[in-house]
Amino acid sequence: MKAEIITIGTEILIGQTIDTNSAWLGEKLNEIGIQIERITSINDEEQTIIQALNEASLRADVIFTTGGLGPTNDDITKYTLTKYFDTELVENKSVLENVKKRLERRGIPIRKINENQALVPKNCIPIENKNGTAPGMWFEQKKKIYVSMPGVPYEMKGIMQNYVLSKLSQKINNQTNILHTTITVVNVPESILATKLTEFEKNLPDFVSISYLPHKTLVRIRLSGKHSIKNILEETLKNQLFKLKDHLKNEIFFDGSLNIFQIVAQLLQSKQQTISLAESCTGGAISKELTNISGISKVFIGSIIAYHNNIKRKIDVKEETIINFGAVSEETVIEMLKIREQFNTNISVAVSGIAGPNGGTEEKPVGTVYIAVTNGKIQHVKRYKFNGNRITIIKNATFFAFEMLRQLLMNEIE
Amino acid sequence: MKAEIITIGTEILIGQTIDTNSAWLGEKLNEIGIQIERITSINDEEQTIIQALNEASLRADVIFTTGGLGPTNDDITKYTLTKYFDTELVENKSVLENVKKRLERRGIPIRKINENQALVPKNCIPIENKNGTAPGMWFEQKKKIYVSMPGVPYEMKGIMQNYVLSKLSQKINNQTNILHTTITVVNVPESILATKLTEFEKNLPDFVSISYLPHKTLVRIRLSGKHSIKNILEETLKNQLFKLKDHLKNEIFFDGSLNIFQIVAQLLQSKQQTISLAESCTGGAISKELTNISGISKVFIGSIIAYHNNIKRKIDVKEETIINFGAVSEETVIEMLKIREQFNTNISVAVSGIAGPNGGTEEKPVGTVYIAVTNGKIQHVKRYKFNGNRITIIKNATFFAFEMLRQLLMNEIE
Repeated sequence: MKAEIITIGTEILIGQTIDTNSAWLGEKLNEIGIQIERITSINDEEQTIIQALNEASLRADVIFTTGGLGPTNDDITKYTLTKYFDTELVENKSVLENVKKRLERRGIPIRKINENQALVPKNCIPIENKNGTAPGMWFEQKKKIYVSMPGVPYEMKGIMQNYVLSKLSQKINNQTNILHTTITVVNVPESILATKLTEFEKNLPDFVSISYLPHKTLVRIRLSGKHSIKNILEETLKNQLFKLKDHLKNEIFFDGSLNIFQIVAQLLQSKQQTISLAESCTGGAISKELTNISGISKVFIGSIIAYHNNIKRKIDVKEETIINFGAVSEETVIEMLKIREQFNTNISVAVSGIAGPNGGTEEKPVGTVYIAVTNGKIQHVKRYKFNGNRITIIKNATFFAFEMLRQLLMNEIE
Repeated sequence: MKAEIITIGTEILIGQTIDTNSAWLGEKLNEIGIQIERITSINDEEQTIIQALNEASLRADVIFTTGGLGPTNDDITKYTLTKYFDTELVENKSVLENVKKRLERRGIPIRKINENQALVPKNCIPIENKNGTAPGMWFEQKKKIYVSMPGVPYEMKGIMQNYVLSKLSQKINNQTNILHTTITVVNVPESILATKLTEFEKNLPDFVSISYLPHKTLVRIRLSGKHSIKNILEETLKNQLFKLKDHLKNEIFFDGSLNIFQIVAQLLQSKQQTISLAESCTGGAISKELTNISGISKVFIGSIIAYHNNIKRKIDVKEETIINFGAVSEETVIEMLKIREQFNTNISVAVSGIAGPNGGTEEKPVGTVYIAVTNGKIQHVKRYKFNGNRITIIKNATFFAFEMLRQLLMNEIE
């Protein structure tokens, strides 16, 4: 069963909004054996929408649209679908009740513009939106399924999870099974990996493909398979994964499509090492990435964000150190590591740098960042120079702080 | 001049990667008067890529492709473009030099697979990639321009900024000017705004359109205009913006397409109020959003991330308070506000909650979050219950901490 997504909304095309819905949809649909073949993002224009629907219906069995269902005049998806299916709008009582209930709860008087949200194309099954006023809509025509949903992510997700995914699962007979399995390799360039895996690639069964996804010091290697018999697919992927790992037995890799934060969290948890942080220029970004991970509270104790130098002094950074070497210096980050004793943890990390756009000097230009890690026995400090704007510099400092932590936890630092 | 983007890579369609390149491209191209009409995301399959190129070239003057230029076998964009233009691959010396230089710097021996990156279609102008080994490629055929770039965001951005944007600007004569202007309205439902602006919308000139982009308690209202004469466009948008603001004079709004973090940062800076934070369940997320903003160091002093209760005690949260009321309680967040005195700031914020998936109770289920703000005179505490997974709960707690700060800074709390 092939699917396409059409995302409708000028905000995506002018870069005011990043489309995160499609990635979520792609992942969830794969899990029930549906493959996204194409994502098309278009403006809120009737002719463009109709053209995109026509094209998609020639290729796909299921077409999802997101966006353009709000109450304002710039949202035209519902009216365009009514035209596309050559039908008319009718009022739906249960949708109207939902709109009224939601507005009442927020103390908003109901207006004509809200009542209009209860008008739906006659040929659709309206889908309750538990997180908003615009209903989802399910259409079937000429053996094709069309699902129209709001663009607001949590509204779209609610509609998918409460209705669409289970209904689609029921509709699928003789489905193709789709499976992906990924490992994440550390510190091996993509080209070296591919050379190592030349033979492995050649011997892959024709229903299994391999992909390389590099990100900074990590390369994710994904095996993807499609097969009508689930058992065969599962067994084959398991065997190929085993072979893949054997080819890479001299490298460092982790199971799953992991980011560096997840890798470090796994290592901290498995080695039962508690951690505290003293962040200056990253301002909480490192702590936040740890906090995003379930179960981290067993090892993550806390941090001080020492943005102002006064706060650095609270972690016992000496006045003279800041005066003599500067807040952005090897000496200062080493003293910031004392958070380890203050917070009584096994490991500590300290970061201080110049994220810009101001504050750079010739000696220490914008992008200069010092990162230090210690476990009490081993201490390691490194000076980095990152390019890009403030946000990119903070992101890079965060990534490499985790990479240094990984090295410390894997005993790669002496 | 119309443009389309084709993003190539199965990782986008299966949800392993979110396409952030297109939003960046959309924004930068708008600035030089080029409008993205369509974004198409497809798999790494020759026939699909050729079909997408054929379709796009019927509609657009410039076609950008991102992705599929890596050295591994799953990357086929370059070979497919060679076929599409019915040409052959030739070795390019300066690309080869760049590949060698980059690998040498990283201490990686050059292999056949790397040398292949210096092969480019004969009809293209290779574009130097200062951040990677795969060159960008510029093609012209039948009055259409094709630009192929790697999918790695910082490589793509470098190629655009170092070459493509300036070359496109030179190519454009008699360009259409495109301008957007946005205001961000606080705490007014979209439907009420639209009703208020019915007359305003009707009277807009036909080359100006209005869009509403709701996000939680904010609605961004965007005026977009296209006109061949720059002065007329600028003047018209200026006047319409003035009228729009007049219609909304009883509401709270800010200039620009702002998020709640930027709004609060503006208020802190303009009112010269320093701030410190005590974060528990948000684990640095609030501090991080402040840190992302340039110039925040004037007002953001620092934070304690009191993830473990031992650290809460360091901000003078009393042992009895945690025992009697729990770490997630009104009483605890109020005591956490003492960070204000410790860090000597005008304002402080404290957050404690249960982000899950574990740790919930019947009385305080997962998603329960207490947020407190104070400026020393006024103190406000609120209990929230957020739905969704761990990351969604942290995001929501972060958003509403900022919304409470906004209210405090705008004297909406008494």
